[in-house]
Amino acid sequence: VSNVLFTAFANRGDATRLAGEAALALRARGVSADVATLDERLHPSASTLLVSMGGDGTFLRSARVAHASGARILAVNLGRVGFLLDVPAEEVVDAVVEALSHHESVARLALDIAFEGDSGCAFALNEVVVERKSPGHMVRVATFVDTDEFLTYSADGVMVSTPTGSTGYNFSAGGPVVDASLDVMIVTPIAPHFTIDRSIVVPGSRTIRLVANDKPALVVADATMVGTLEPGQSVTVRQSATPVRVVQSRSFEMGFRLRENLREGHA
Amino acid sequence: VSNVLFTAFANRGDATRLAGEAALALRARGVSADVATLDERLHPSASTLLVSMGGDGTFLRSARVAHASGARILAVNLGRVGFLLDVPAEEVVDAVVEALSHHESVARLALDIAFEGDSGCAFALNEVVVERKSPGHMVRVATFVDTDEFLTYSADGVMVSTPTGSTGYNFSAGGPVVDASLDVMIVTPIAPHFTIDRSIVVPGSRTIRLVANDKPALVVADATMVGTLEPGQSVTVRQSATPVRVVQSRSFEMGFRLRENLREGHA
Amino acid sequence: VSNVLFTAFANRGDATRLAGEAALALRARGVSADVATLDERLHPSASTLLVSMGGDGTFLRSARVAHASGARILAVNLGRVGFLLDVPAEEVVDAVVEALSHHESVARLALDIAFEGDSGCAFALNEVVVERKSPGHMVRVATFVDTDEFLTYSADGVMVSTPTGSTGYNFSAGGPVVDASLDVMIVTPIAPHFTIDRSIVVPGSRTIRLVANDKPALVVADATMVGTLEPGQSVTVRQSATPVRVVQSRSFEMGFRLRENLREGHA
Amino acid sequence: VSNVLFTAFANRGDATRLAGEAALALRARGVSADVATLDERLHPSASTLLVSMGGDGTFLRSARVAHASGARILAVNLGRVGFLLDVPAEEVVDAVVEALSHHESVARLALDIAFEGDSGCAFALNEVVVERKSPGHMVRVATFVDTDEFLTYSADGVMVSTPTGSTGYNFSAGGPVVDASLDVMIVTPIAPHFTIDRSIVVPGSRTIRLVANDKPALVVADATMVGTLEPGQSVTVRQSATPVRVVQSRSFEMGFRLRENLREGHA
Repeated sequence: VSNVLFTAFANRGDATRLAGEAALALRARGVSADVATLDERLHPSASTLLVSMGGDGTFLRSARVAHASGARILAVNLGRVGFLLDVPAEEVVDAVVEALSHHESVARLALDIAFEGDSGCAFALNEVVVERKSPGHMVRVATFVDTDEFLTYSADGVMVSTPTGSTGYNFSAGGPVVDASLDVMIVTPIAPHFTIDRSIVVPGSRTIRLVANDKPALVVADATMVGTLEPGQSVTVRQSATPVRVVQSRSFEMGFRLRENLREGHA
Repeated sequence: VSNVLFTAFANRGDATRLAGEAALALRARGVSADVATLDERLHPSASTLLVSMGGDGTFLRSARVAHASGARILAVNLGRVGFLLDVPAEEVVDAVVEALSHHESVARLALDIAFEGDSGCAFALNEVVVERKSPGHMVRVATFVDTDEFLTYSADGVMVSTPTGSTGYNFSAGGPVVDASLDVMIVTPIAPHFTIDRSIVVPGSRTIRLVANDKPALVVADATMVGTLEPGQSVTVRQSATPVRVVQSRSFEMGFRLRENLREGHA
Repeated sequence: VSNVLFTAFANRGDATRLAGEAALALRARGVSADVATLDERLHPSASTLLVSMGGDGTFLRSARVAHASGARILAVNLGRVGFLLDVPAEEVVDAVVEALSHHESVARLALDIAFEGDSGCAFALNEVVVERKSPGHMVRVATFVDTDEFLTYSADGVMVSTPTGSTGYNFSAGGPVVDASLDVMIVTPIAPHFTIDRSIVVPGSRTIRLVANDKPALVVADATMVGTLEPGQSVTVRQSATPVRVVQSRSFEMGFRLRENLREGHA
Repeated sequence: VSNVLFTAFANRGDATRLAGEAALALRARGVSADVATLDERLHPSASTLLVSMGGDGTFLRSARVAHASGARILAVNLGRVGFLLDVPAEEVVDAVVEALSHHESVARLALDIAFEGDSGCAFALNEVVVERKSPGHMVRVATFVDTDEFLTYSADGVMVSTPTGSTGYNFSAGGPVVDASLDVMIVTPIAPHFTIDRSIVVPGSRTIRLVANDKPALVVADATMVGTLEPGQSVTVRQSATPVRVVQSRSFEMGFRLRENLREGHA
């Protein structure tokens, strides 16, 4: 069994090439290392270190694999910006060696998504969205936190975000930036009509239920469609029993990253 | 040729029935009146009075017919709320008789939408949106006003709204409410990432160009898909040479309507 | 020593009258009860139950007294709306008797505010704001979380809110609604110029520092001015060592209250 | 009578010095030119060209003088950023000579502010705000457009902005950017509580009335306090009969300026 598994999308030649080079360099140091593309079914062991090579999308897909197996994950940034990614390409090998030596990781809250009347379920590290199915037509989504009824939105969609996802789609939709270490979920409507657009932050221990009131809706998790809701059907979102174990190679300075990304955003 | 043409969606039985009754009542008063469904191709004469029976969607579709023929249009409200609609169902016949007697209307700015490198064009009374094609993936849209480059947004989409449309999708996306008589267009991004989300209000005489920078995008006009953009392709939006001629049966009190709709929005 | 101390503003005759009646009724049941106005210096014992009679302002002022002494506090709602208040006027006596019998309370995070280069300090249950001193002139405020530099805002002000305060001024300024049980602080700018207006949610264990960069600024805690900052001077905000102990007479349904208040807001 | 009058704040030594040098250079070319500080009472003739030397604040104060006398005004930018200012310091003399040769200007909508039950009135080129008088206490402001009642806000304040002012305080409060040539006014609430925060754009021909419902309020025009309102008293805002005549030395590219200012805003 490999100690290290690099993951990349098959269509990103730069990522697979860099991963191959890093694997070679690690093997030269006596570390067992392999490269896999995210199109394959991957079943690493819990003791493997996954190394995501790409942008935020690569990381989110790799995190799903890491979560299923209990493996730790390290994120290398080959993209333009990447709020979630902390290792620059040129430091991959050193970062992996460092990660193997100390066995540490931080826990990132992840979401389990269950469909009403259906055994199906899905996973998200960033966010899950119940959104409109057809261009130009709002959905009407009712929101519940445990048994407490919150607002019902006519909107493009309603999202439940993790702290990790708070700087992603949640941020675009007007939601707050939330420290990644917090045990909370954030409910944010997307372009809600004639109502308040504030986010709601609830404890990670709560169960959130989103009901597609009168029209079918899509359910999208980490930018991947994972199902549809029929009118009246709901999806239930709760904290996953196990977190995603992320290796953080350096201090994650949220303020610094925020300022960096904002400057980039207006370039 | 009929003086009055009621329009409704074929699948709204309540609307076609009410339209039929109103047509009968008008004929009893010597007014030539007909009912048509919006699935047919309609070619009324410029002297016909169109009467839209339904909600905002019915009105927007009927307005397209009215605009193409130069006919006036009167909006009857059979929906729950309707910012654009001013005649309650029970006053249809009186409102039509009144409209036929005075020949007046107000002009509402409409949009002509032209696709780059393509003879295709489309029409909108409310708004045109360049939006993402796949769930979960932002588009990158550059905006130009005449030759002046404005912001480039990574977003769910970017919209150009008329004053008539300002209380619709534009409002949901955070845009301002604009008096319907003004000769302006409003550019509003939808869930833009890491940039400013303010709307921009420009004179109706300007030409707005939206470019889908690096991914294909959908073009949606008044909630109907009217085309797609390839990466690098643009769509040009300008004021239509002729406005939509709307019969306003009573004083349109924007403040009053706003308060009504807000109360309804939180119900 | 009284078991129960009702608190009210001296200029609210209705509140002092109701408090007097309730105190009488309690004494008839053998409970020692008194009434005090918030203009006096109050030093209840830690075993006293404070009962705030009024609106949100009365509650916030009484909470300061409760916090200083370690006493529990129960909030009676004599106002129009009141997100923080849960006992209607007619249920005061029953709620007090109930509170005395079970000795329970929930802990609400409170803020300690320290002025740089100054022994002065202040307290807030809702929020502390560093804001402009003169009408029409922005302040420039730099924000730090521990040693991490966050954004610098040119704004009307910058606020640190508790979860309890999240539905108050924080909400007006665009901040999220945060479950009152969470151990977090929320940083929200007020009308920031030409920058991002998102809130930032950080763990309650962090220290937030706000620096008035180039102009004097006011420091306002729970709607009361508590000091001024000279250019370059900062204020440090951290979780108080002891929380405010709030008696909650019924289940606090945040969703229900939110919908109630929103309806009221548009009336 | 001078052809050219430079204006600056007395306490800005750099501005008065630069103005003095430019005046000298102009006199050497046979142009009569003088320098005045904005603390004096200035009564230029309608044929004078005012040249504002400073930042946005200098321009707004000078514009008041220009408006009262009918003189044209040219804005030189000695500040860091300045959305309203288009001539860099080193081009002052050339820009003045150019302005004297062609006699052109663009008209910028200005506001007349009248106090109810009072002969007092005030002027604004950017915006007028009815705002809270004490730190930490909202005002309740009702808004009317002609006789139509709009929303009533509990807020820090409510502002009426011109298109010229749209990138100033209006922008900070969430309002839209409006093309400076448009004949409209923008109503924007500042941190409104539990209600919708959208701006409303109305024709320049309308009369806007703001009523301080239950508490005294300040009236602030272009960042200067111009009066107070007693509870129940209102202020009426309408387009001034004469615009401010601004000399624009180059094409005013709004998109370009917006991008420049946004980059600066996050620096």
